[in-house]
Amino acid sequence: MTPEEFRKAGHELIDWIADYRQKIPGLPVRAQVQPGEVRTALPPQPPAKIEEFGALLTDLDRIIVPGITQVQHPMHYGWFPSNASLASVLGDIASSGLGTLGISWESCPALTEVEEVVCDWLRQLTGLSDRWKGTIHDTASTACVTAMILARERASGMSKNGSGLQGAAAPLIVYSTGQAHSSIAKAVQLAGFGNDNLRFIEEDPYTRAMLPGALALAIEQDLAAGNIPAGIVCSVGATATTAMDPVDAIAAVASRHGIWLHVDAAMAGSAMLLPECRHLWRGVEQADSLAWNPHKWMGTILDTALFYVRDVDHLERVMSTNPTYLHSSADGQVTQYRDWGIPLGRRFRALKLWFHLRLDGIDAIQARLRRDLDNAQWLKAQVESSENWEVLAPVALQTVCIRHVPLDDAGLPLCGDALDRHTLAWLGRINASGAAFMSASVLDGRWMVRVSIGVEDTTAAHVARLWELIQASASTN
Amino acid sequence: MTPEEFRKAGHELIDWIADYRQKIPGLPVRAQVQPGEVRTALPPQPPAKIEEFGALLTDLDRIIVPGITQVQHPMHYGWFPSNASLASVLGDIASSGLGTLGISWESCPALTEVEEVVCDWLRQLTGLSDRWKGTIHDTASTACVTAMILARERASGMSKNGSGLQGAAAPLIVYSTGQAHSSIAKAVQLAGFGNDNLRFIEEDPYTRAMLPGALALAIEQDLAAGNIPAGIVCSVGATATTAMDPVDAIAAVASRHGIWLHVDAAMAGSAMLLPECRHLWRGVEQADSLAWNPHKWMGTILDTALFYVRDVDHLERVMSTNPTYLHSSADGQVTQYRDWGIPLGRRFRALKLWFHLRLDGIDAIQARLRRDLDNAQWLKAQVESSENWEVLAPVALQTVCIRHVPLDDAGLPLCGDALDRHTLAWLGRINASGAAFMSASVLDGRWMVRVSIGVEDTTAAHVARLWELIQASASTN
Repeated sequence: MTPEEFRKAGHELIDWIADYRQKIPGLPVRAQVQPGEVRTALPPQPPAKIEEFGALLTDLDRIIVPGITQVQHPMHYGWFPSNASLASVLGDIASSGLGTLGISWESCPALTEVEEVVCDWLRQLTGLSDRWKGTIHDTASTACVTAMILARERASGMSKNGSGLQGAAAPLIVYSTGQAHSSIAKAVQLAGFGNDNLRFIEEDPYTRAMLPGALALAIEQDLAAGNIPAGIVCSVGATATTAMDPVDAIAAVASRHGIWLHVDAAMAGSAMLLPECRHLWRGVEQADSLAWNPHKWMGTILDTALFYVRDVDHLERVMSTNPTYLHSSADGQVTQYRDWGIPLGRRFRALKLWFHLRLDGIDAIQARLRRDLDNAQWLKAQVESSENWEVLAPVALQTVCIRHVPLDDAGLPLCGDALDRHTLAWLGRINASGAAFMSASVLDGRWMVRVSIGVEDTTAAHVARLWELIQASASTN
Repeated sequence: MTPEEFRKAGHELIDWIADYRQKIPGLPVRAQVQPGEVRTALPPQPPAKIEEFGALLTDLDRIIVPGITQVQHPMHYGWFPSNASLASVLGDIASSGLGTLGISWESCPALTEVEEVVCDWLRQLTGLSDRWKGTIHDTASTACVTAMILARERASGMSKNGSGLQGAAAPLIVYSTGQAHSSIAKAVQLAGFGNDNLRFIEEDPYTRAMLPGALALAIEQDLAAGNIPAGIVCSVGATATTAMDPVDAIAAVASRHGIWLHVDAAMAGSAMLLPECRHLWRGVEQADSLAWNPHKWMGTILDTALFYVRDVDHLERVMSTNPTYLHSSADGQVTQYRDWGIPLGRRFRALKLWFHLRLDGIDAIQARLRRDLDNAQWLKAQVESSENWEVLAPVALQTVCIRHVPLDDAGLPLCGDALDRHTLAWLGRINASGAAFMSASVLDGRWMVRVSIGVEDTTAAHVARLWELIQASASTN
């Protein structure tokens, strides 16, 4: 395709995207397609002939859009917000158009240095000290695998350079809680620790925060058993209820024993753009690594996951390779991001953050986050003041965990499997209708509904409308 | 930013990209900036005020473009081709504009099912049987880490579910060659095997291909020592010289011992779009996993790395998590790509391949690949027939490894460090001039120059011009 052909098609595509974004509020939130429906709409064999660009736009309308759960929809309250601000989309488009190759500083100095600068901007905007250096990963899952490998190598005396994890003197142990995101257990397993060496520390029964005393005790027990405490993963805004582990108390335990402390703030990192929220990760300066995703609530389009460390030397020792075909005269004077993570090659992801901050601006982003915090508190108040409704966890940020507990035929609060059936039924009716979407999650063995507020276009009126939908659905039989 | 503001800025950006792509041939190939030059052109503090979109376009021209090594330039012959075909760029833009979230089938059924379909299209186009199932990773490095974890878990009896790699009965061993990409050794280290458990098998001194007899011997020795052979990484198109390990003979050894065989065809996978090249990976059907990057020679913009496995059950057992907040009624009927790799969330990468194949078409892609093979053979013939020039390795694909060995003052062929200085000097002059770019690499302890042909816009005339530049530079003192 020539640049002139691209120009023509590109203009059509921009119009298509702008039109699509405008019509999202009129689309069903959850994709209404059945399993296999998109697949069977596509030819099973690769195309034998080239096609006009218009045919692809038609297919976007006909096949793709119906197959999307509209996470940019103002009535989307599922999982966590996954905003794709149009300012950041422009940065992503610029990245695509440039077609750069990020395998070394030399292959694209601008890619490396803009990434250094915007990671430092975000460091400043979240109130972190300049002891932190950052890079962009695809997701917090990948950042966590990296953190677990960093922990493993510190605790095993850089076993990767010798006989590997098998050569470690004793079993290496990682500590977290049952509230930690599923990617934490996965990272522990992928890094080779084994599930038996992952300890879920007792939580506060209401806040779901890790109990630092229980952590200290578990570590003492492992030390007494001859095991090696290697890593702690502290959740700041855990997935189910946005539980907040007490970073400061955990960091005190970690530093006493020289244990690698990773802070998973994938969701709550965005909140740290608001100075009034930073008490939620008090103590973070004592951690060793930290991940948060602007591609969630802040809204820099996926994939934009920030990963910060304090000890860059250790990071590079663990993650570096230095083959001769990548040598250049700039070595030693520049950052080589290939030595900061798993993949060698990288996209020019920093442009997404660069565009987002320059075009939308931090003031507007902060105002939006505060709006969402207010909306969550409003919803919490409605639920708490309504008969037969419960708020199940502290509303630390923008997620409200709720359950409707009507009275059964005997006049007693519904419980057990009947309560689960009721919860999934009223939620299922809303999700199936396409009018709104929320996720369910299990808490203490019973289903609850997570109302995760924070889509860019979700206003107070949308949240009020949701509360009406919820009440109506829960009172239907 | 509203959709209407996006529409206006987007049109400006499309024009900017089309203009940029048109002017690439007039830009220096290697970025001419010094370390730190881009960084110091940017404000050290985050922007306090929002800016007009025009200011960003100005900065792209003023700061970013000079900081890019132009890998889309027709005189770029460095590393490996990193084509970003404009047809695939359109697919990438569509992906950005849609702003989808890929964390489960339910979060975007279209993302999952288009990925299934295009991975199967590429399977057919490279002549693989339908026993292979594919997914898209960011890079072959990540695919290799995944493969090494799959090998580790098979050889250790799924140690991740128990006491981890430390609980394995004996040291687990991986086999490859010194030609394997640096990401292979990195993957072995990251997966916890330890560098001492990576065996570099003897290579043929000219083809640099792994000697299967030496592999068989090394495995026998490890078995005799009580070690557990766990994985073999076979390179199809290794980085320095595009060396081709004999997959069939290696697969025979691997299957005899039940060792996981990963084929790294990151570069050469594109060649398998040509039926006449498929003999180069004969035996691939016996491998366990396979990675290749359409974002290299084929030209689907980075990041598009295909990863195929035959045993999806093992893949999912190793990589899966199944938290309740991701449950949906579609579970069991659909593919959950979160259980096929490291990250939970994914972009809608499949659109890049979908657009590329439908707009450029396989015929045009094949014709371009054949043109590049012809150009490489032409250059090889020129070098071989020129006095004092050497072709150092078989030209299996599009990379020609060369060295100029002039006579010294005593009339003897230059050798030792003086030869290295000469090689790096003539290459350095060309690269510094901006007229063309090639990479150096060390082969048998001495520097050589890799001419890696295959940029979309590189014609026979460009290669002829390069050969003139090379000769002129090598004869300069």
